[in-house]
Amino acid sequence: MPSQSKHEWMDNTLGPLVKRFGERQPSFETSSGVEVEPLYTPEDVNGGGYDDSLGYPGEYPFTRGVQPNMYRGRLWTMRQYAGLASPEESNRRYRYLLEQGQTGLSVAFDLPTQIGYDSDHPMAAGEVGRTGVPISSLADMEVLFDGIPLDKVSTSMTINSTASILLALYVAVARRQGVSTDKLNGTVQNDILKEYIARGTYIYPPRPSMRLVTDVFQYCSDATPRWNTISISGYHMSEAGATAAQELAFTFSNAIAYVEAALDSGMDVDSFAGQLSFFFVAQSNLFEEAAKFRAARRMWAKITRERFGAKDPRSWRLRFHTQTAGVTLTAQQPDNNVIRSTVQALAAILGGTQSLHVNSRDEALALPTEEAVRLSLRTQQILAHESGVTDTVDPLAGSYYVESLTDQLEERAFDYIERIDEMGGALAALDQGYQIREIHESAFRRQQEVEDRRRVVVGVNEYQLETPPIEKLQTIDEDETGRQLARVARVRSERDGPAATASLSRLREAALGRDNTVPAILECVEAYTTVGEISGVFREVFGEQQEISPF
Amino acid sequence: MPSQSKHEWMDNTLGPLVKRFGERQPSFETSSGVEVEPLYTPEDVNGGGYDDSLGYPGEYPFTRGVQPNMYRGRLWTMRQYAGLASPEESNRRYRYLLEQGQTGLSVAFDLPTQIGYDSDHPMAAGEVGRTGVPISSLADMEVLFDGIPLDKVSTSMTINSTASILLALYVAVARRQGVSTDKLNGTVQNDILKEYIARGTYIYPPRPSMRLVTDVFQYCSDATPRWNTISISGYHMSEAGATAAQELAFTFSNAIAYVEAALDSGMDVDSFAGQLSFFFVAQSNLFEEAAKFRAARRMWAKITRERFGAKDPRSWRLRFHTQTAGVTLTAQQPDNNVIRSTVQALAAILGGTQSLHVNSRDEALALPTEEAVRLSLRTQQILAHESGVTDTVDPLAGSYYVESLTDQLEERAFDYIERIDEMGGALAALDQGYQIREIHESAFRRQQEVEDRRRVVVGVNEYQLETPPIEKLQTIDEDETGRQLARVARVRSERDGPAATASLSRLREAALGRDNTVPAILECVEAYTTVGEISGVFREVFGEQQEISPF
Repeated sequence: MPSQSKHEWMDNTLGPLVKRFGERQPSFETSSGVEVEPLYTPEDVNGGGYDDSLGYPGEYPFTRGVQPNMYRGRLWTMRQYAGLASPEESNRRYRYLLEQGQTGLSVAFDLPTQIGYDSDHPMAAGEVGRTGVPISSLADMEVLFDGIPLDKVSTSMTINSTASILLALYVAVARRQGVSTDKLNGTVQNDILKEYIARGTYIYPPRPSMRLVTDVFQYCSDATPRWNTISISGYHMSEAGATAAQELAFTFSNAIAYVEAALDSGMDVDSFAGQLSFFFVAQSNLFEEAAKFRAARRMWAKITRERFGAKDPRSWRLRFHTQTAGVTLTAQQPDNNVIRSTVQALAAILGGTQSLHVNSRDEALALPTEEAVRLSLRTQQILAHESGVTDTVDPLAGSYYVESLTDQLEERAFDYIERIDEMGGALAALDQGYQIREIHESAFRRQQEVEDRRRVVVGVNEYQLETPPIEKLQTIDEDETGRQLARVARVRSERDGPAATASLSRLREAALGRDNTVPAILECVEAYTTVGEISGVFREVFGEQQEISPF
Repeated sequence: MPSQSKHEWMDNTLGPLVKRFGERQPSFETSSGVEVEPLYTPEDVNGGGYDDSLGYPGEYPFTRGVQPNMYRGRLWTMRQYAGLASPEESNRRYRYLLEQGQTGLSVAFDLPTQIGYDSDHPMAAGEVGRTGVPISSLADMEVLFDGIPLDKVSTSMTINSTASILLALYVAVARRQGVSTDKLNGTVQNDILKEYIARGTYIYPPRPSMRLVTDVFQYCSDATPRWNTISISGYHMSEAGATAAQELAFTFSNAIAYVEAALDSGMDVDSFAGQLSFFFVAQSNLFEEAAKFRAARRMWAKITRERFGAKDPRSWRLRFHTQTAGVTLTAQQPDNNVIRSTVQALAAILGGTQSLHVNSRDEALALPTEEAVRLSLRTQQILAHESGVTDTVDPLAGSYYVESLTDQLEERAFDYIERIDEMGGALAALDQGYQIREIHESAFRRQQEVEDRRRVVVGVNEYQLETPPIEKLQTIDEDETGRQLARVARVRSERDGPAATASLSRLREAALGRDNTVPAILECVEAYTTVGEISGVFREVFGEQQEISPF
């Protein structure tokens, strides 16, 4: 401990200096509104003691990481999110990324696929292949993974309302490849709650949606024990404006709701908790973000063990994917985005992520080009192999600043969770528009800071250039869309019609009753019924959800 | 403290796991050969106590920084090193950089200027304006700073053998602008010892060269109290292959030699030590580099106070410029260099640098284009304004890993200094080729690691591409060289010939005697004698140095 207290130093040395010369800003805060002090010293570190607050990596409360030797053993999975105009083009991109050293796949789907419309549905017009790959039936999925052995790769699929359908399609491809389902590695996002709060691709009302989610938990618990059944996501809430503390809080209050729903459906916590995974953003505030990931691990360990009584250490371990922050990308001076993404990726690595997507320089303008996405992968490889930060576990541990931020973020996030608990949990809070309102308020405050230039965004409100450089952008080739529509038509005409109809009838029965819906979906997809048809059954049985207003 | 010792954890938990699954590499080391352990805990932190090892920023031993509030008060000086084919073109680049938000200038000179030949000298053929701007006389210097008020800007000049001549030229321009010399802010590199060790632009033998250096100390102590009289440089030794510990050690052993030379010339330590500044590299190993800068401050504080008995706290404070590591730039996949430079710049900032140059993506291929150097400046601005790392002082302090690295680098560097002391100091060691030999050995080891692929360099020995993208490169315009040669000719024909000759005679007398040479040089430059003519006088009086062999 310092012989002079920090308080004395601030009064006697720093105070007079600041009074005389001022500082760059009247105050300094993290995105979560945590006041950043001029200096952190041993006085700022939690008195909780090393064992309770940090522990060894691989051990409760996992603050320092989920494995004992972390990246010395194996690097995170380098997983660039990608989906182009057609299954063919997407398949080429995946093979290209694997050739360039990528170690996992991440599938982006187009909007129609996400909200349960086939490529040939009138609602899909103009949207096919726009934000990701269109998948209407098993025929598309077979093309998507052509030549990619599913027992050798781990695949993440960003899909929510139609998650169980895409999971079933993946399982069906694996079967056709002769790969046993217990060998499948990957993740379905399957996080419907954050869709209502921030992302918007929901179809059904919250309660039947929750059933589809827990049906996946149960199905995967037996059939695909190495598969992550959900990726409970803070990312999109952060993109919508949530602070780091809100991201933690709303993600975990959603997670609590999922666990409670699964327990209500009769499952044992340790039978499914080890397959829950998470998805966070990495924003630009390097130390706040690294602290956030460390706090997240400690919080989840406490929630699963203390709140839910999980006994299996695998249930306590928070494993997460990270994506750098799309919202920070600027269309102005796009090369600046390489610098931002490097800092953000570093935050994720210092925070101990299991999987990482680095945004590309041109993503503020279009889907990334091959060159841009390769540079994103190179960002990961350079940080992995040249920066030295992967050579020891949790290198920031002990930093007075980082430990103090970790404690404060945990405290703020638990305060929010307590408030949500008092409202009756995440679903009840959602009904009142609570999370949406809180996020809107943070977004508004942030926007004001940018407009008032209290927050400098390089190239946007300072250091602007008159003519933005012209970019080579990824475009959608109409031929690709045509090929996709032709395949959907062919599937409809060539499949065994009565078998398809029968499978949909059995699905309807399952949906109306209490049976797990996943085996019925699997039967449907193997009969080449489409994503739209399967979703149509659920639409009929569950109804559709209208927009949730925060007010 | 952890209840289980780290030793026990490594034996009981980590050891069996590593034995079973292995790790990515058989061992992990920093560039300095410091073994990186799998984990750092409170056990790894120096028992020295907070006051002795860290202290408050702005206070002895300055580990946490030289100012109490560091970047909260004022950011580092953003200073991109630049010098193009002619004074005119360089002047345009400086104005462009200042418009883009640069906060200080850094002048790169061409090789003839650095080794005392005018642009029209036969030795200069083919080299004029190649590595920087050619400056032969005051007429060139006036063009270089045209429209740039020298009382409003801080200027660093990378110049060594001819440092006092360029300093005199700068003073002469200031006088013409009506700027009093006590208002001048900036630095001359003026570090001849590292030229013999690594950089190679020396002219005279070491001992008379040392006199030219200390003449600048003495002149500036009175005339330009805000000017840094030297920038004692580890950068080029690191580029030549020195490890972080060697960079610290050889830089400080050179610094010790300068201080001793100045003391021998009769100066009081506190009359000049506050004007000494330093120049280090930022390599890619993020935490080792940040630790290096922290160790450097503590070492210099100890050296000035304990070894030389300096009493003025300004003498204890190590202030330094940083440049990202040119040696890490690759011609292959040049965009990768943006990622490397971002990490390196971050290391410099986390280490508390006072001034920073970020290398440009194309610097492995040519002098940087305007677009490339703008991106380097944007790198600094994004780190300054968007990453949050500038909002608190020394954010890494307390990190078990970083504090341990800081201690170990200091220890290794002081061991080297002790060895050099035993050899009779930096000059005596240099006579024996010691530093050159040590650096060569490190460079050789590093090269072997790259060739054996034990050290991955992305895009070079892994993740290669077949066709390197073609770059828009900066080229030398022959018209610029023509204009420069014409001006040199005009100066020779239009100046007052007898006055020029007389000033050179007085300089010869000063060089032969014991008077300070700087006032005589100033008289010469104001009479429009040239850099080559002035250096010619010294060549005649002092002789020329042959190459130093390490063997």
